Formats: sequence, structure tokens, C-alpha cells
Amino acid sequence: MIRRCFQVARLGLHRALPGAPCVLPRLNLTSASGSSADSLVSRFCPEKTDFQDYALPNASWSPDMLSLYQDFMEKTKASGWVKVPSFKSNREHIHGLKLPSSLAVPSDKSNGRLFTRCIQVEGQGYEYVIFFHPAKKKSVCLFQPGPYLEGPPGFAHGGSLAAMVDETFAKTAYLAGEGLFTFSLNIRFKNLIPVGSLVVLNVDVEKIEDQKIYISCIAQTRDQETVYAKSSAVFLQLQLEEESPQ
Amino acid sequence: MIRRCFQVARLGLHRALPGAPCVLPRLNLTSASGSSADSLVSRFCPEKTDFQDYALPNASWSPDMLSLYQDFMEKTKASGWVKVPSFKSNREHIHGLKLPSSLAVPSDKSNGRLFTRCIQVEGQGYEYVIFFHPAKKKSVCLFQPGPYLEGPPGFAHGGSLAAMVDETFAKTAYLAGEGLFTFSLNIRFKNLIPVGSLVVLNVDVEKIEDQKIYISCIAQTRDQETVYAKSSAVFLQLQLEEESPQ
Repeated sequence: MIRRCFQVARLGLHRALPGAPCVLPRLNLTSASGSSADSLVSRFCPEKTDFQDYALPNASWSPDMLSLYQDFMEKTKASGWVKVPSFKSNREHIHGLKLPSSLAVPSDKSNGRLFTRCIQVEGQGYEYVIFFHPAKKKSVCLFQPGPYLEGPPGFAHGGSLAAMVDETFAKTAYLAGEGLFTFSLNIRFKNLIPVGSLVVLNVDVEKIEDQKIYISCIAQTRDQETVYAKSSAVFLQLQLEEESPQ
Repeated sequence: MIRRCFQVARLGLHRALPGAPCVLPRLNLTSASGSSADSLVSRFCPEKTDFQDYALPNASWSPDMLSLYQDFMEKTKASGWVKVPSFKSNREHIHGLKLPSSLAVPSDKSNGRLFTRCIQVEGQGYEYVIFFHPAKKKSVCLFQPGPYLEGPPGFAHGGSLAAMVDETFAKTAYLAGEGLFTFSLNIRFKNLIPVGSLVVLNVDVEKIEDQKIYISCIAQTRDQETVYAKSSAVFLQLQLEEESPQ
């Protein structure tokens, strides 16, 4: 997700200078940090829902991806990990909530799709599942890029990895502390990812300070022998609003 | 595109320390900087080809996007701008060439698609066209994100913009000086992009030094009143190889 500085300014934040990077003053934003990770998880990751969850195994998943998924599913039973469901749109994630009213949503097109679920043929695009640990404020994303995410022939596009990292950051930042908008994203690429490989993204919330969430990621092979990329980002905290009853 | 440090190491470059960021020594790489921007353009952007060019107007383009496209098409006639064609895969761009042989391509699946052309329904995903100016080493990308690129409801996903920026950087870095792999990408988000809006990416090659291309971008509205994001990246120079005759 992206930060809307201009609109955030209308929420009480401001730029130090016109054209300068957005600077957040130390405001006492009552909206931020209002909810615990557990309560965010229970609202954002409903165990029962009518919405289709796309973060489930399908025939395109490699044996490696499937076995690691099963390992983490075991961890959800005893080790405090939570599987984050993945819906067609963030509208479904934040069902009953909405962006702050000062962030005017320009349209309510129901044909919107979350970018990382834009390709609907199994195995062709993004195959991924995110697990989150509320107490440790960590995530792990298992990611298998399909042939429609190509950059150099036979390898995943750098932008497809950047988007996968941003999406995993966004879900983690929200669940860890209502981080809603990406302020900045840095990524350093180390190795090309062959299409169809399993990439494991290990994401850590480094700190939460002044309504900002500092988050980092290392993307690598399952055996940690090959690092694909390292990334860091800053997210802004902002609380979603309750939708008014119909 | 991504830099493959591990494999670049096999090309004669190396890391200073295990696990440290890739450090490029001052090697006399004869492969780099071997071609002028004009000769790269003539090979990479063929005026006549059998491959389908996706960077052409369609019914989903907004009047704003279409009129700016037409303005740039006028500039291709007299002002030194070149329209960069956009094929289904980079295989078609580098037809007759290939990645350096030390970069082993793990598969030759013909069903690969360039990530930013992964959504085939007009207007749903990426609509864009890139213009490049060889003498000025500048590019302009006209980008209209569709509803399948959604992040926050009604707005483009930060990752979709990051991928568009990376793709524009990649094409520009290659045409300006054989920049082939992204080493690092930084992006700072300023405002959310409403789905369906026109975003203009102005890209400049800042310098080419030690086989690295330093490149920057500002993404904004056509009238420059709203900045969506600012970005910078470093690309590595590496010459593509001639394919051996069949």
C-alpha cells in the first residue's frame, strides 16, 4: 500500500517545506496504535468467511512450497503463527472498515483486484502465502513466481519481487501495528530468481516509533544458501474507520 | 530487471566480503559501454517487426493519456524521441541476442510474459508506453493503472508503481548504456494514485560510472501539480551476447 502524503496532510500531518520529503511531526495521533496485534489479526484474518482465500495450495505449487506450507500450518496449531488469508481485494480484508474518510476513495469499482492476485490462472502469476506471528511481529511469505512475472527471460522481474515484498510488508505492518501506507521502500537485488522457484521472505518489524513502522526483509532460498534480495521500508500508522451501519 | 550478483561474480566481478553488498571493482570490462545509444535503439526498438507491440492506444486509454501519447508521437518525428515498442517478453526485445552465457537461463518456456504485460484484458492492468531520447538519455513513461493493480481500495498498489518504475528504468538503462540488471531500487511514495489516472514518469540517467548506471524518476500528474513518487536506482552494465547461428 502507498502513503498519501497530500491527504495525510489533511489528517493533521504536514510537509516541512513544499516539495521536501514528507516530514511527520510528533503528533499525538489517537488513531495510531489503538489496537493490539491479536485484535487486528482476529478482525483482518477471519477464520470463517465467505470470501475466497487464494493462499491455499493448488496443483501448481512445487513440492518444496507445499512441504514448507505444511510445516507452517503445523506451527499455526502450537507456535503462535497465523496464516493470513488472501482475498481478491483489500475491500474484503477490511470488511466493515474503511480508509479514513479524509482519504477519499475515488471509486467503488467492484472489479478491483489486489495487484498480487491479478493473474487468475493457477501457477502463471503470483503463488504465495503469508504467515504472521503476532507476538514476535514477524512474517514469512512463501512465494513462487510464475512465468507471467518474467523480467529477463526465464527469471522473475525485479518489479514482481518488489511488489511481493511490498505486499508482505503491508500486511505485516498492518497486523503488527496498523501500518497502512508505505512511506518508502528500498530493495537491493543480489541474485536472479528462476521462474517457478520457491522464495522465502523473512520479514521483521524492527521498531515502531512516531507513528512509523520500520520493517525489513530478506528473500532467499529455503536452505538460505542464496539470497535473492534484501529490503527495508517505512510504513505510516493510521487507523481504519468503522463503516457506518447501513 | 534484476542483477544476479552470484552470477556476475562468475563474470569477473566479486563481493568484497561474504554477505556484504556486492562491490564492483574497477574492472576493464570490455563488454560494457560497447554500443552507442543509437545502435542500441535501432536493435532494441525495431521499426518493423512481426512481434505484437502492446504500447499502442486502445479503447481503455483516457483522453489525457491519448493526447499526451499523440504529443510524443509528434516529437518522434522531429525532436529525437523514440517510441519504445513493448513486446510480450524480453525474448522478443533481445531477439538474436541472449544474456551472457554465464547467466544460465533455467528454462526456455515460451509461455513467459513480461511482468508489466501480464494482464491481457485492455484497461484492467498495465497500460503504458515509454518514449526514450537517446541524446538526452531521458525517458518518459505514460502509465494508466487499471483496477487489477489495486492496493488500497480504489488506488494503485505501491508494488505496481514500483514495478512500472523498475521496468521503465530497465528499458532506459539498457538503451542509454547497456544497463542490464537492477542493483538497487529506492522509492519514496508521496500520494496515492487513483485507479484509472494518468501517471507521467520522467526518467533521467544521472551518470554512468564504473559499469554502473545511476537513474532517477519522478512520477506525477500531467500538470505536475501532484507528485506520486520519487525513485532512484542503480543498474549494472553488461553486454548481451550474439546468439550463435542455428
